[in-house]
Amino acid sequence: MISKQDITEAHTRIASYIHNTPVLTSSLINEIAGCDLYFKCENFQRIGAFKMRGAANAVLQLSNAQKVNGVTTHSSGNHAQALAKMAQLAGLKATIVMPKTAPQVKVNAVKHYGADIVFCEPNLAARETAMQEIVNETGATFIPPYNHEHIITGQATAAKELLVAYPTLDYLVTPVGGGGLLAGAALTAHYFTKNTKVIGAEPEGADDAYQSFKQEKLIPSIKPNTIADGLLTSLGAINFEIIKQHVHDIFCVSDEEIKEAMRLIWERMKQVVEPSSAVALAAVLKNPTVFKNKQIGIIISGGNVDLGKLPF
Amino acid sequence: MISKQDITEAHTRIASYIHNTPVLTSSLINEIAGCDLYFKCENFQRIGAFKMRGAANAVLQLSNAQKVNGVTTHSSGNHAQALAKMAQLAGLKATIVMPKTAPQVKVNAVKHYGADIVFCEPNLAARETAMQEIVNETGATFIPPYNHEHIITGQATAAKELLVAYPTLDYLVTPVGGGGLLAGAALTAHYFTKNTKVIGAEPEGADDAYQSFKQEKLIPSIKPNTIADGLLTSLGAINFEIIKQHVHDIFCVSDEEIKEAMRLIWERMKQVVEPSSAVALAAVLKNPTVFKNKQIGIIISGGNVDLGKLPF
Repeated sequence: MISKQDITEAHTRIASYIHNTPVLTSSLINEIAGCDLYFKCENFQRIGAFKMRGAANAVLQLSNAQKVNGVTTHSSGNHAQALAKMAQLAGLKATIVMPKTAPQVKVNAVKHYGADIVFCEPNLAARETAMQEIVNETGATFIPPYNHEHIITGQATAAKELLVAYPTLDYLVTPVGGGGLLAGAALTAHYFTKNTKVIGAEPEGADDAYQSFKQEKLIPSIKPNTIADGLLTSLGAINFEIIKQHVHDIFCVSDEEIKEAMRLIWERMKQVVEPSSAVALAAVLKNPTVFKNKQIGIIISGGNVDLGKLPF
Repeated sequence: MISKQDITEAHTRIASYIHNTPVLTSSLINEIAGCDLYFKCENFQRIGAFKMRGAANAVLQLSNAQKVNGVTTHSSGNHAQALAKMAQLAGLKATIVMPKTAPQVKVNAVKHYGADIVFCEPNLAARETAMQEIVNETGATFIPPYNHEHIITGQATAAKELLVAYPTLDYLVTPVGGGGLLAGAALTAHYFTKNTKVIGAEPEGADDAYQSFKQEKLIPSIKPNTIADGLLTSLGAINFEIIKQHVHDIFCVSDEEIKEAMRLIWERMKQVVEPSSAVALAAVLKNPTVFKNKQIGIIISGGNVDLGKLPF
């Protein structure tokens, strides 16, 4: 079980590898939403997403024997970039399995951070097989994207920075995909605040966390379909146990609502955010009676988006 | 003459009306530029630009008699929004003269802040005539966009926040249009640092500040043509006197170089910045021998850009 001390120690461990990202506000968005919003901007984190925190916390706890053989993961998203960057900073070899359909911009980013890339067919079985081969051949340690206590504890530090600065928030809303960010935020609110309720925000087209939460059993994501490409993964089992216990509720939003919230953040807050990041604001805007006149923290999860393919 | 105390007092005066904007860094852009860059993000300022500072400092120094009759200006840009917003916060009536060709998004923003708008033909004579009529009819006080000591002193507070946090910067680079930001930055570096050299960055297509600086006489902007639409105005006379005395140099960049720098900030720093804001980074990237291994502050001036008309 992850303790308060684990989160505090993780924060100290990773502090020199991450940015303490700013918290920004917009009086115009507050006016629209009817509440006071505090945006924790993890799009300004290294590699452009909160995933840097979990990757740093996991890599820094490897034994010397593990470090010799390097690290590996399979991901086409922000975790791939985070692990590649963190391995580079720690002087370790990283091998990333990516689907051969991954956008060139993400492939380039991972390459730029000095990682080796192994391409595979774009399905989970192919990804796992390719990665297992790497583990067998090189002895590299698999650093999972979300279903691991070191990852959850690392992601928790984003909420910790926000909640230490604003300890009286009524709500903290984060997107939920695999559940690393949400589980970490829920534990942090539990340990570091008196009354902050944590809410997950999820696309309707990938609502496995919502379904799992309501039915109190883990239900995998089947054929998810949403513009929020960072939230397609299924909720992790470790994450789900924490979410069941410490999350107040999960709200779902449509892709149209995600796009509208995304545009608001771009236009009014002058921030480049990816669709997954806008899900939390979309959930607040969709439920005005819940949030009216409350103080609400929102974690903007990342900003890695193809500028040539904006939805507006 | 603006004193050190004037800048300190202005900062105290406007503190509750502005954001102390974050300073962000990017290891990737540092790598590309070959130096350490500290970006003061005034695109996250209220109304999305540093202009809020000068407008606040000017409005807050009006006499009670002046306040009764409200304020006015002519502008199609960020100063219009800043004055409208500041008048709203101070409970004053604002009437803004805008060219009838002004983009609808800017007209909407000014309206949203509660100002009245008077449209005129899109030339300086028509703007000045329309505004003079308002002054004659209503007794409103004209708040100029840059050529005024209260405006310059207000804009100086952006550099002050950056230089108090990073007092050992070798250089501070800002865009220059009318010269309010550059003059304020130059005075601040003079008063608050030992060795920070201040450099102006200007588009080649609107290089009146460069020409004025080199020829040591004020040369107006004739038919300026650049993507950096915030820098089309001619340098102010008061601004020029300060710039002559306290600015180290002015560098010019092409529109292509501005677009490249703008894209870097969007992609790598996840920030929405307007073209005028990218001029300073473009100037650093164009002059690597000047800036090599130095510590450089850059003021990102604003983020008010039409998302439907991006140059990339």
